[in-house]
Amino acid sequence: MLNIAIVGYGNIGKAVMDAVETAGDMALCGIVMRKQSLNKPQVSVPVVDDITKLDPRPDVAILCTPTRAIPAVAEACLLQGISTVDSYDVHTDIWELREQLDRAAKQGGAVAAVSVGFDPGADSVVRTLMEALTPQGKTFTNFGPGMSMGHTVAIKAIEGVKNALSMTIPLGTGVHRRLVYVELLDGYAFDDIAAKIKADPYFSSDETHIYLEDNVDALIDMGHGVNLVRKGVSGQAHNQMLEFNMRINNPALTAQVMVACARASAKQSPGAYTMIEIPVIDLLEGTKETLVRRLV
Amino acid sequence: MLNIAIVGYGNIGKAVMDAVETAGDMALCGIVMRKQSLNKPQVSVPVVDDITKLDPRPDVAILCTPTRAIPAVAEACLLQGISTVDSYDVHTDIWELREQLDRAAKQGGAVAAVSVGFDPGADSVVRTLMEALTPQGKTFTNFGPGMSMGHTVAIKAIEGVKNALSMTIPLGTGVHRRLVYVELLDGYAFDDIAAKIKADPYFSSDETHIYLEDNVDALIDMGHGVNLVRKGVSGQAHNQMLEFNMRINNPALTAQVMVACARASAKQSPGAYTMIEIPVIDLLEGTKETLVRRLV
Repeated sequence: MLNIAIVGYGNIGKAVMDAVETAGDMALCGIVMRKQSLNKPQVSVPVVDDITKLDPRPDVAILCTPTRAIPAVAEACLLQGISTVDSYDVHTDIWELREQLDRAAKQGGAVAAVSVGFDPGADSVVRTLMEALTPQGKTFTNFGPGMSMGHTVAIKAIEGVKNALSMTIPLGTGVHRRLVYVELLDGYAFDDIAAKIKADPYFSSDETHIYLEDNVDALIDMGHGVNLVRKGVSGQAHNQMLEFNMRINNPALTAQVMVACARASAKQSPGAYTMIEIPVIDLLEGTKETLVRRLV
Repeated sequence: MLNIAIVGYGNIGKAVMDAVETAGDMALCGIVMRKQSLNKPQVSVPVVDDITKLDPRPDVAILCTPTRAIPAVAEACLLQGISTVDSYDVHTDIWELREQLDRAAKQGGAVAAVSVGFDPGADSVVRTLMEALTPQGKTFTNFGPGMSMGHTVAIKAIEGVKNALSMTIPLGTGVHRRLVYVELLDGYAFDDIAAKIKADPYFSSDETHIYLEDNVDALIDMGHGVNLVRKGVSGQAHNQMLEFNMRINNPALTAQVMVACARASAKQSPGAYTMIEIPVIDLLEGTKETLVRRLV
């Protein structure tokens, strides 16, 4: 049995607990939360403010903190010899994080699964496989319909915005429509705020529609989707058509992928791995023979 | 540069040559054909009847012989220290082949990539990934539209059949329609032959339509497809919908996958691997950093 700690207990942390509970080869040994947020959740495992207080000591820490906290939290765990799984999602910095955590993991004799989840993560594996099947060609990742956290945060930073939600709508070939729902503070004009949103770099190059709402929270839906498409060439054969679609509860999928990577971490040599560097068989429960007989 | 030999020069062998030629990290050192078929193809590399006659000695032999010849041919290469890639497609015997080739590969210090191609192969990776994303649920592999070699061979074995072609049509949820086209020898009645086909275990449980044709060869089209569908559960979230589609030239795709696995074989420890045991990143040309930056 693999002993698992959950670090951070928001949407993803709760979904990770669900996924660990359905795994036959894992035991949850506790939840780690920052002191100030210790309005303890109703759970049957210890809740602590420092991972070193858990007994038994976890084999793997599944990190469900905000992305910006990941580098420091992961490094600290790895140096103590606790493997980590994170869903760090700043695409441009993933290699640098992997380098940093690779050093810490090797020093601590642990494994870091870096940037695993929906995208980066499952989509990354499919993109890589598609390129192996058709080395020449173009892949389009079409997201949605679903909420975009990054875009939502950008709107909330605008003065006068009380609450906001940005939905991503896929229009195909990597082009997206943005549907933006806002609640405003008193004294701010909708047209001014709408102009500022449309001028923001997050929105300025996309088709953006902005709507005034009374209750943005009533629109929240954790469902998301992706349509990954590649048309390419195998050898001399053109027009090879490949497609991958998901319509999923996003936190649940992300959490399930993190739990699968926690399992896989126990099967890798010390170091850091993105999901495309991990054999997919290692994500699953069961013996190699059973899995090969059933899935190959 | 990886030195590649192609063993067997039918549809797949020719497509492998196309794929090797487009790879920047491989050189084709020759083609191996059985003596009796040495009506030498018009190629710019040596054509020999024994792999030991090739100079330079190949690092990897891509085996494009009929499936039944694979176990012996692969074992002989591996014991000489030449890695192998095969597309062995008898799903029920894959584990046994992997065990046999694992022993030979470890003895020879080589790597065997076993049962790689369309399905088993690329589909196997997707099935495994889908199960990691939604451990509870059911996957359906819907093949076609495309030709089925196994079904075609079964019809050709019936007395009175001059030529035949069996097409697989996907009806969803793993149910398939069979479209069978036959040419008959003189003196045989279509109704009798049709009854025999419908009674064959290959067809008896599927919806089967049989048509008399003047020229079956005129119907041949190497295009094929798959629709892989899974509806499952991540943690406590039900109704997670996953789908993978391909519409492809089948020999070209199979060959391209084999070439990608030849590349990957150089990055694995001695032993035998099915495609789900190989990290997808190893299938691609390029440095780890470049690939992680572009695809994760």
